[in-house]
Amino acid sequence: MIVDRDGLIQPTARTTVRRHKERAEYDRQAAYAILDEGFVCHAACVVDGTVWMIPTAYGRIGDRLLLHGAAANHVLKAAGEGAELTVTVTLIDGLVLARSTFNHSLNYRSVVIFATATDIADPVDKAVALTAIVEHMLPGRTADARPPTPIELTKTRVVSIPLDEASAKVRSGGPLDEEADVELPVWAGVLPLRPRAGTPIPDSANQTGVVVPAYLDQPARWS
Amino acid sequence: MIVDRDGLIQPTARTTVRRHKERAEYDRQAAYAILDEGFVCHAACVVDGTVWMIPTAYGRIGDRLLLHGAAANHVLKAAGEGAELTVTVTLIDGLVLARSTFNHSLNYRSVVIFATATDIADPVDKAVALTAIVEHMLPGRTADARPPTPIELTKTRVVSIPLDEASAKVRSGGPLDEEADVELPVWAGVLPLRPRAGTPIPDSANQTGVVVPAYLDQPARWS
Repeated sequence: MIVDRDGLIQPTARTTVRRHKERAEYDRQAAYAILDEGFVCHAACVVDGTVWMIPTAYGRIGDRLLLHGAAANHVLKAAGEGAELTVTVTLIDGLVLARSTFNHSLNYRSVVIFATATDIADPVDKAVALTAIVEHMLPGRTADARPPTPIELTKTRVVSIPLDEASAKVRSGGPLDEEADVELPVWAGVLPLRPRAGTPIPDSANQTGVVVPAYLDQPARWS
Repeated sequence: MIVDRDGLIQPTARTTVRRHKERAEYDRQAAYAILDEGFVCHAACVVDGTVWMIPTAYGRIGDRLLLHGAAANHVLKAAGEGAELTVTVTLIDGLVLARSTFNHSLNYRSVVIFATATDIADPVDKAVALTAIVEHMLPGRTADARPPTPIELTKTRVVSIPLDEASAKVRSGGPLDEEADVELPVWAGVLPLRPRAGTPIPDSANQTGVVVPAYLDQPARWS
């Protein structure tokens, strides 16, 4: 077990950042802020000697990440049965355009988690986890959406991942060019990137009088 | 070896999509279009019994994907030495808001690749690959940026990944609700999402008279 003291996630041999150590973040809140801003992770584990990887939505409740999927999903099934998971959340913040090809980079914030997951079987716990996943995707949504039925819950696998062995890595700011390159007449800088939301597209079968919910308008998050 | 006939990537047992088969794409050009639109992948392999995963930029030359990183990078080093890689590229196109929690989904396009990579040692081949990676990130950029020196090339590991065992999965369109749910007075639809570029941020040390290059303005890609 990893000791959590003063809000730090104590790095293990696996989560100690070895290159660009200045980009490492072991602060739990910093890692959680990245997890909370993203909503899609890549989760991988070994099944029959092959690394299987899925992109999937997630939620967070306290010190646990929650993943869900079809009951037969390869990665989640293996995770529920005790296979070790590696989960990465990556936010891309911009292209870093240096004067040299070599020093081009990306601004990003990422978290990598190594964990053994627990399968959530209890229907109430499962429903709570699914609510967290949908709320993570779009806060406010579960007040409107019909909750899962018992049958829907049995069709869904939910696994819970402890956030004990995790590290964050952050690159921000402008290009870091070699001193001799700074005199080159090459534009250097950052092209910021972020996910933006477009205009909501209503389903053609929406009932008359049903309006676009206010929670779809989240300027701080999507624009 | 996978037979490539009529532009299809013949699915193997590992790349045959098993759930939501209607989302599967085995057409090589469809998969390449996804790879060409994205520019960050998640690459994973097993080292000492652990699945290591990195988010990293990539390029494509023909039927090969190119990854680069520090020479000592765990995942790339293992890949260069023959470890099998799993690489995923995921584009998130929107939140799919169904009337039921259960039918919430994401619109996305993803490609998963299983491959044994080849380490590129030849400096000329390496420079070509690095050019492809930077051009993939930002077409036009390598006409401006200083090319890598021999020393920079030795500091960089480049691996080449055959795109023979790959499959794409695409979810698009509106929510698919249960028939009984369509009558619920719940707004259903899609919130489109895409990466957008902000205003370029020039490095404070840019030489006088150096202007923002025209290739930074790519409305079709970033807006």
